[in-house]
Amino acid sequence: MTEVPIMTLDEIEDLAYRALVAAGTSDANARPVARATAATEADGIVSHGLAYVPIYCEHVRCGKVDGLAQPSLSRPAPSVVAVDAVTGFAHAAIDLGFEALIPTARDQGVAALAVRNSYNCGVLGYHTWRLAVEGLLAIGFTNAPASIAPVGGRRAVVGTNPFSLAAPDGAGGAAVLIDQSASVIAKSEIMKHAREGLLIPPEWALDPDGHPTTDPEIALKGSMAPSGGYKGVGVALMVEIMAAAMTGATLSVNASPFSGTMGGPPKTGQFFLAVDPGVTSGGLFAERLAVLVEEMREQKGVRVPGDGRRAARRRAERKGVAVDPATLEKVNGWL
Amino acid sequence: MTEVPIMTLDEIEDLAYRALVAAGTSDANARPVARATAATEADGIVSHGLAYVPIYCEHVRCGKVDGLAQPSLSRPAPSVVAVDAVTGFAHAAIDLGFEALIPTARDQGVAALAVRNSYNCGVLGYHTWRLAVEGLLAIGFTNAPASIAPVGGRRAVVGTNPFSLAAPDGAGGAAVLIDQSASVIAKSEIMKHAREGLLIPPEWALDPDGHPTTDPEIALKGSMAPSGGYKGVGVALMVEIMAAAMTGATLSVNASPFSGTMGGPPKTGQFFLAVDPGVTSGGLFAERLAVLVEEMREQKGVRVPGDGRRAARRRAERKGVAVDPATLEKVNGWL
Repeated sequence: MTEVPIMTLDEIEDLAYRALVAAGTSDANARPVARATAATEADGIVSHGLAYVPIYCEHVRCGKVDGLAQPSLSRPAPSVVAVDAVTGFAHAAIDLGFEALIPTARDQGVAALAVRNSYNCGVLGYHTWRLAVEGLLAIGFTNAPASIAPVGGRRAVVGTNPFSLAAPDGAGGAAVLIDQSASVIAKSEIMKHAREGLLIPPEWALDPDGHPTTDPEIALKGSMAPSGGYKGVGVALMVEIMAAAMTGATLSVNASPFSGTMGGPPKTGQFFLAVDPGVTSGGLFAERLAVLVEEMREQKGVRVPGDGRRAARRRAERKGVAVDPATLEKVNGWL
Repeated sequence: MTEVPIMTLDEIEDLAYRALVAAGTSDANARPVARATAATEADGIVSHGLAYVPIYCEHVRCGKVDGLAQPSLSRPAPSVVAVDAVTGFAHAAIDLGFEALIPTARDQGVAALAVRNSYNCGVLGYHTWRLAVEGLLAIGFTNAPASIAPVGGRRAVVGTNPFSLAAPDGAGGAAVLIDQSASVIAKSEIMKHAREGLLIPPEWALDPDGHPTTDPEIALKGSMAPSGGYKGVGVALMVEIMAAAMTGATLSVNASPFSGTMGGPPKTGQFFLAVDPGVTSGGLFAERLAVLVEEMREQKGVRVPGDGRRAARRRAERKGVAVDPATLEKVNGWL
């Protein structure tokens, strides 16, 4: 019989915080990452919860992320907030930006936050969700090291570049939370197949010549297939333009890897738009969104984006989260 | 030997204008539609150029669009422009909104335009492109009558709902113009296969039970397949939330058809975001975008979104556009 440790969300946050600080992260940088780690475990996204903390710690140690960075904020225009993360954690830079973004969006109706010289922001939908909690409609974009080739090409130009939209439910949550990357499958799935000596479906990835492959080792030398062909590349390009070109961050083609310890800081970017839905819709937003959600929920077998995370969060708040003992051991190794 | 009539862009605009006015459209509403018609022919998008004018005329005649509508503008917040199209043409409503949106985006750094009680806006990328011509980064969303079911469902909830992003080249044009719908294929292609008695590929559409079909007649009773499965539905949902819920327009599920004469005005919506790229990027936008475009263009066989339209436009400005005689006859029928 195996015993699986169950942790409360506060315990998860505290553990993540202590590991990050032990690795050399300042209090101001460790707290937002620890808070996001607990929220991500609550949402049931195991890959980016505690399992990611040892990677963060290692990246602080090797200098891929500056644990002591002090992000700096500027207001280049009345409705725009810009934050230079100065190669520190994205979370602290985004938090600093949100403090200005939220009241600005309420005053102006719409506001933008551009974050540059940043790092992997973890689960993008965690950040947009927090804007929805504040009653704002949020769209977020973040780029990642290049792994997807444009259709017809062989060389990767864009990353798995996710976008996220969070639509507020008017009651401190998100009625809809879209959070999706541009590839058919996460790269980690291909790495897992390679480790286990399994073939991959031909629609997952391309070899270095741009042809479909079922060999995960060859796939890792080639590129990830975009979800939805050229239209998937179109979405990834939108994200790239918003997260990198519109922020002055580093393009995916020039960004150092998010994994491993080589290459220095990736200096990627995040871009957020926050809109007051009552203002743009003349007060009709809540009713329209409720009907849209109901049209989906009425259909058996249909999933409303965000439902899974919300259900997991409610469960986690009541019962805590079961944590993989191997993960726990790795995190504890940093204390 | 067949002679194909060649028309200049001015001649196309003039012809479209006269047909629209003859059908009962006011000067103020006919001019923006005629201008878009010429631009769309210039861009090589035959389906939405002169071929669409007889449909516009018929819709003015039957009341699906009010040819005499006077769109009204309001400023519900400093960075937000809202326009009620009062069931008139989207083009006039968008033009009225852009007059306020463009200076607001320059002053505030970012601005939003919400258009409600609107109609089919033609090619969405025509509108975002015009914002790029003004040096602004533009994102646009528009919804359409429901034709795509959420994955796992059987009933359509969202339309082919396109989004568009236009990135300015700083020289009066767009360096990148993304303009894509959410379905694998345009519905008109399925209708064409039905007329010609041809089967369709199984990935194009679903039958009324939500299963793939190769019979175009059955497909037309079912739903359109989303490009990229659930991620394609996610993109269409983002568009639906922005174009309908965020504007107070009619949801796709409640919108009357864009085709035919039944059902009255569709009252759909458009949402545009305009951002000053120099402001958000600290002046780095142009360089970043140039490198991104070059990374794609260097690869043989890769198409940069917008290249096709730009090349067609340059050709059309020099040599005019070859117009299908049958289309010309139909448009002339309205004079």
